[in-house]
Amino acid sequence: MEDELIEKIRAAMNRSGSFSRGGSLGIGDDAALWKVPNGREAILTCDWFLEGTHFYRDKHPPEAVGWKCLARALSDVAAMGGAPVCFLLSLAIPTTLTGGWLDRFLSGLGRVAKKFACPLAGGDTTRREQVLVNVTVVAEIARRRAVLRSGARPGDIIFVSGRLGEAELGLRLVRESRRRITANNAALKKHLYPEPRLALGSWLSKNRFASAMMDLSDGLSTDLPRLCVSSKAGARVYASKVPGPRISTIAKRQSFNSLELALHGGDDYELLFAVPETKSNRIPAEHCGVPISRIGEITASRDIILLNQDGRSLPFPNRGWDSFRASRE
Amino acid sequence: MEDELIEKIRAAMNRSGSFSRGGSLGIGDDAALWKVPNGREAILTCDWFLEGTHFYRDKHPPEAVGWKCLARALSDVAAMGGAPVCFLLSLAIPTTLTGGWLDRFLSGLGRVAKKFACPLAGGDTTRREQVLVNVTVVAEIARRRAVLRSGARPGDIIFVSGRLGEAELGLRLVRESRRRITANNAALKKHLYPEPRLALGSWLSKNRFASAMMDLSDGLSTDLPRLCVSSKAGARVYASKVPGPRISTIAKRQSFNSLELALHGGDDYELLFAVPETKSNRIPAEHCGVPISRIGEITASRDIILLNQDGRSLPFPNRGWDSFRASRE
Repeated sequence: MEDELIEKIRAAMNRSGSFSRGGSLGIGDDAALWKVPNGREAILTCDWFLEGTHFYRDKHPPEAVGWKCLARALSDVAAMGGAPVCFLLSLAIPTTLTGGWLDRFLSGLGRVAKKFACPLAGGDTTRREQVLVNVTVVAEIARRRAVLRSGARPGDIIFVSGRLGEAELGLRLVRESRRRITANNAALKKHLYPEPRLALGSWLSKNRFASAMMDLSDGLSTDLPRLCVSSKAGARVYASKVPGPRISTIAKRQSFNSLELALHGGDDYELLFAVPETKSNRIPAEHCGVPISRIGEITASRDIILLNQDGRSLPFPNRGWDSFRASRE
Repeated sequence: MEDELIEKIRAAMNRSGSFSRGGSLGIGDDAALWKVPNGREAILTCDWFLEGTHFYRDKHPPEAVGWKCLARALSDVAAMGGAPVCFLLSLAIPTTLTGGWLDRFLSGLGRVAKKFACPLAGGDTTRREQVLVNVTVVAEIARRRAVLRSGARPGDIIFVSGRLGEAELGLRLVRESRRRITANNAALKKHLYPEPRLALGSWLSKNRFASAMMDLSDGLSTDLPRLCVSSKAGARVYASKVPGPRISTIAKRQSFNSLELALHGGDDYELLFAVPETKSNRIPAEHCGVPISRIGEITASRDIILLNQDGRSLPFPNRGWDSFRASRE
């Protein structure tokens, strides 16, 4: 049965054109092999995606579970400026889900693997009451070109890609829903099928524009302090410049606060990056269809300060996602 | 709290001298970096280690959980002949275990990481009711030297390292125990603290002795057919040559069958390998203290045949470990 399951995964990924050939061995031996090109560095990252913690089986479409488990690991690669090579899938699943649910999961997984050129190269499967996923992504980058969190310097300009808080808004819509939802608005689409910003990350790294970069997975109010701590610096952020979600009619009715969502919402998988002031005019307002916003500056003072339009400072509590804290709701 | 947990893991692995420096970035950025030496291939493998499936929190010492989660992934590297580079740790854990239990887990993990020169380079943490572990190991090997499952040819001699079935015997002793057990006999030691056969695997690969190799994780009766299927061949195994467990007094009292344990017991993490007949006299009876046994031959016929001392064939059902089958007990 375990061998049959592995065969099923291999066949499904093969059909979507996202199964590793040539360079690596892929599933079926004890491990995967990768012929590393000379002069390149490997980037390694792994991510949990767990039923009940990161998704609900009764509410999230299996395709979205498959898409998102790989998309979020790819976002870590984008955050360093790398290009994906392959991924390993660790899947624990109840026997009852190895039919239609698994087919749909693999279909979503195959789509994101194909879109971002990251074929499956191996993994591990086991039986479990709940669906547990762990994804490891291997990526590559030219030596000394990886963009770290630690390189920001006072005076650097802070940018973010995309709009912040839409995924959080999507999550709230999911929580309120009584049934499995579909991606019928921007917020749900962002929550279910986030797009790792690989093209932007790679472009920033190749041109040496970004001094520091990370992806926004836990919310700006949690992640910006992390970048600042790594860089031994602080930041000044302009509330009016932070690109919040496009609030839909439904969300408006429920009076969600756009700035609150943008500051504290998790799961955006947008890029947060710093650019030396002298290079900052090279950053366009949009890259490959993704808007880029200038939201503030890195400061020598270690504080993180949020300013409103009158230049007065607003409270900027760290209220993003932390699985070890009680729920924010 | 999540950031504090990551800091705790980093500090503990640092103390044991098993935290990655220099070559790779390690925990704290979005991903780990590895400067791949020219002319080498990367080996990538991942493994689940889940509470209730692979260990019991009330019976297994936390040190053994830490040791084994990495040791079993290292065994996949040994099975290809590679040398470890670093590992990624994905850990889901209840808040109540982030004190003493985690310290002991990290102590066991740090010991195996240090012993086999495989430092921690990154990972992911989250909160969960049960302890979930996923380990990814990155290893390296000279190009075209990785030993696959698929290279065995008719006439090749089949060898195994160590003794088979001891880990299964250890597991049975654990199941019968009402409390947390300690490694006070060979079977329990093998079950709790398996030793990946990295030195042997690497020696076989460097000298090009092995035509095919894999590690025994699910039992000889499950894993040998896998090697044969990959190699498009069959096998003849001599029951009297299969090195069974040293049966302790306790186990004798419970009349465990040594051959049954050796054929079907899982979790041994010994190496199963084929060697062309012309090179087979180069394989010693022992390598770095680990016994090596010649147990049979690869055949052109696709069957797997088990012969007793009179040359009569015995049934050789595939009864090893498969998490998707009902328990064997």
